[in-house]
Amino acid sequence: MQLRKAKRGDLRYIVEMLADDDLGSTREDFRFPVPASYMDAFENINLDPNQELMVVENMKGEIIGTMQLTFIQYLTYQGGIRAQLEAVRIHKNHRGTGLGTEMIKWAISKARKKGAHVVQLTTDKKRLDALRFYRDLGFVDSHEGMKLHL
Amino acid sequence: MQLRKAKRGDLRYIVEMLADDDLGSTREDFRFPVPASYMDAFENINLDPNQELMVVENMKGEIIGTMQLTFIQYLTYQGGIRAQLEAVRIHKNHRGTGLGTEMIKWAISKARKKGAHVVQLTTDKKRLDALRFYRDLGFVDSHEGMKLHL
Repeated sequence: MQLRKAKRGDLRYIVEMLADDDLGSTREDFRFPVPASYMDAFENINLDPNQELMVVENMKGEIIGTMQLTFIQYLTYQGGIRAQLEAVRIHKNHRGTGLGTEMIKWAISKARKKGAHVVQLTTDKKRLDALRFYRDLGFVDSHEGMKLHL
Repeated sequence: MQLRKAKRGDLRYIVEMLADDDLGSTREDFRFPVPASYMDAFENINLDPNQELMVVENMKGEIIGTMQLTFIQYLTYQGGIRAQLEAVRIHKNHRGTGLGTEMIKWAISKARKKGAHVVQLTTDKKRLDALRFYRDLGFVDSHEGMKLHL
């Protein structure tokens, strides 16, 4: 099993995982070929040195997990860098195996290496399993995650 | 009054506002000259096309407000861009004047122009005034903002 940077050819499997989700199914558009909006987004992410779009590939060459890690430079915390997690997904056939924990631990370690002072994420309050999962990993729900959809 | 991109010479006034805050006072280091970690962070932000560090300058040439707006490209929402707000501060002598509302409305408008589908932020659950302020502007606290300090 290998956690590595996503390649363009992984995109259809990533989008499939993003869409195969209670909330994701209402807002993603999984088809093949993958719609151009995803392709363009992939290129932008790939070109940005502050972004790490990751996948987990198993021994059979299947993509079974993904997450996106973004490093953001702020002035706060004396000019600190934050590591932000988004779009963490595990393929439904591979949940409950500890893979998610491995992925987040890797992200934490990567954030440390980058000199980040915090790893942060927001999770929908409806995702009760995700809340428990992140709490168990040491995340504290100290903040309200506020969204204004345009 | 003018809302504009921050210049290097504004940095001391920005850091002063970041430090002059119940939570900020515990983690910032406001001195003059401004510590190098803030200067380096400013340069990184300034060079990043996805970042907009803003200040409000009044008629007397005083810096009375600041915020940092970051555009993040994701795969989710069919390759959507999110606009993320952080470090929104109003000088204590200028609170309650509607300036904060003006600033956030500008950020929303800027996010629309960039094609972002959401404006998001996290705010410490202890900041009850901030929570009310953002709710009044249409933000919904649908998410938990989870942090893991390193």
